[in-house]
Amino acid sequence: MDVEHSPPIRTVAIIGLGLIGGSLARDLAARGIRVLGWDQDVASFQAAFLKGIANELVVLDPDAPIAADVVVIAVPVRAAATVLRRLAPYLDAVRLITDAGSTKRSLVRAAEALGIGDQFVGSHPMTGDHRSGWDASREGMFDGAHVFLCPTSSTSDDAMRLARELWTSVGGRTEVVDADEHDARLAWASHLPHLVSFALGHTLAVQGIARTELWKGGRDVTRLAGRSPEMWTDIAFDNAEAIVPALEAAEKRLREIRSLIENRQDARLRDLLAEAREWHRVDP
Amino acid sequence: MDVEHSPPIRTVAIIGLGLIGGSLARDLAARGIRVLGWDQDVASFQAAFLKGIANELVVLDPDAPIAADVVVIAVPVRAAATVLRRLAPYLDAVRLITDAGSTKRSLVRAAEALGIGDQFVGSHPMTGDHRSGWDASREGMFDGAHVFLCPTSSTSDDAMRLARELWTSVGGRTEVVDADEHDARLAWASHLPHLVSFALGHTLAVQGIARTELWKGGRDVTRLAGRSPEMWTDIAFDNAEAIVPALEAAEKRLREIRSLIENRQDARLRDLLAEAREWHRVDP
Repeated sequence: MDVEHSPPIRTVAIIGLGLIGGSLARDLAARGIRVLGWDQDVASFQAAFLKGIANELVVLDPDAPIAADVVVIAVPVRAAATVLRRLAPYLDAVRLITDAGSTKRSLVRAAEALGIGDQFVGSHPMTGDHRSGWDASREGMFDGAHVFLCPTSSTSDDAMRLARELWTSVGGRTEVVDADEHDARLAWASHLPHLVSFALGHTLAVQGIARTELWKGGRDVTRLAGRSPEMWTDIAFDNAEAIVPALEAAEKRLREIRSLIENRQDARLRDLLAEAREWHRVDP
Repeated sequence: MDVEHSPPIRTVAIIGLGLIGGSLARDLAARGIRVLGWDQDVASFQAAFLKGIANELVVLDPDAPIAADVVVIAVPVRAAATVLRRLAPYLDAVRLITDAGSTKRSLVRAAEALGIGDQFVGSHPMTGDHRSGWDASREGMFDGAHVFLCPTSSTSDDAMRLARELWTSVGGRTEVVDADEHDARLAWASHLPHLVSFALGHTLAVQGIARTELWKGGRDVTRLAGRSPEMWTDIAFDNAEAIVPALEAAEKRLREIRSLIENRQDARLRDLLAEAREWHRVDP
């Protein structure tokens, strides 16, 4: 297909109308795109339908191909591969298949294994909320958001162009990155901070310290403990290989800080904290 | 002294014109209080003097008693006891001696040991910044801030009344709490979140992940890594007894999360994260 003159996106099928899928549906509908929707929770589809956002129900395992330019799989990370497998026989008319999960390697590999690598681009919009589900979805969620795009080994130019068009049309800024590199970087830059925040929240919960007893700084550090346990369990297992060493490194650093305090090594503790501060200072 | 009719605060001597002492000096001067100042950095005193905030230099180890209603020791936690000892012989005319440190037990005990327990109330305003020093100080820093007041075993009614007056006059909301209880609570509610944030920042620094590569959530979790290494080394050692078990608990929780991932115990990880989220949800 001639990329320069390939037709624009007219119809998008969104599988999963939760926080991310629902917000994307709202934004696309507001821009005149026809939205087909599906959610395992019928009430979410109904809500989207009644608001005039989802024009039609996608039927999984249909008898006919899905009639959409783009399919977005916006279900939890570990359910995405299953959905992709169920849809695979019906994607002939689809020019781009993408997702919105926080890990990318496993789904990119799954698309390749299913023989739909040319139509597939993994997407990861860096946005989120402590709430989830259709009721939490809103217009404008992707405005200014960074969106990672991870091609397969055979992604077509047309699919990549549509992936850029999809996310930039709702305000995202896209960056193409290899899926392996994405998962390795995100293990440190996102997954580790989330799990540390969960760990601190749980520690305080067990100690009987209410979040209301923290001050602004402590609330910042524990903010991510409010994210979805289901989603973060999925991410932790899907990216376990990269996350486990990151967790080990954080444990080691905490243990080192404790040991310096126990052994009253003032100068070394101050140096360690100063190195962290120096890292913090190099901030835009 | 008749508490109902005790004279108001006219003169306050502030030892240490950094972020906290400098901000307090600005607020008090703006309310017409005469401010005497001292800082080991002469430039800080000069800056305060030239701005018309510090009216006079306090001389440590003077030949005459300090002529102030209130003395505020706003130096790092572990220097405060030394300053208190040096000032002790010259405090006869002083009705309230207080401080602004993040730990309270050691200084309250020091005041008792010096025989100035009746004039002493430990203060801990819950405020701060990633910057420090006179240049970072500003008017209004204590507006709406929670301020812990920790009496000694012999604090006079007049000293306690002046401590309340001092902090409420600059917008603080005071809460009286036993010094031991203060330090035990703050080890979990403040000191632990700070050290966890420093530990995470250091972990990412070692891994070569810049803070600019984090997103909003990760920046929140690492925000406290920007605090003063000197101040937090002092706090860690001064409250080591309570902080060490808190650090151990956080390490244990991180190790548990890692082990659940390694052993692929989905349900148990989800439960642990859900407990943290439940704790987060009970938020004002």
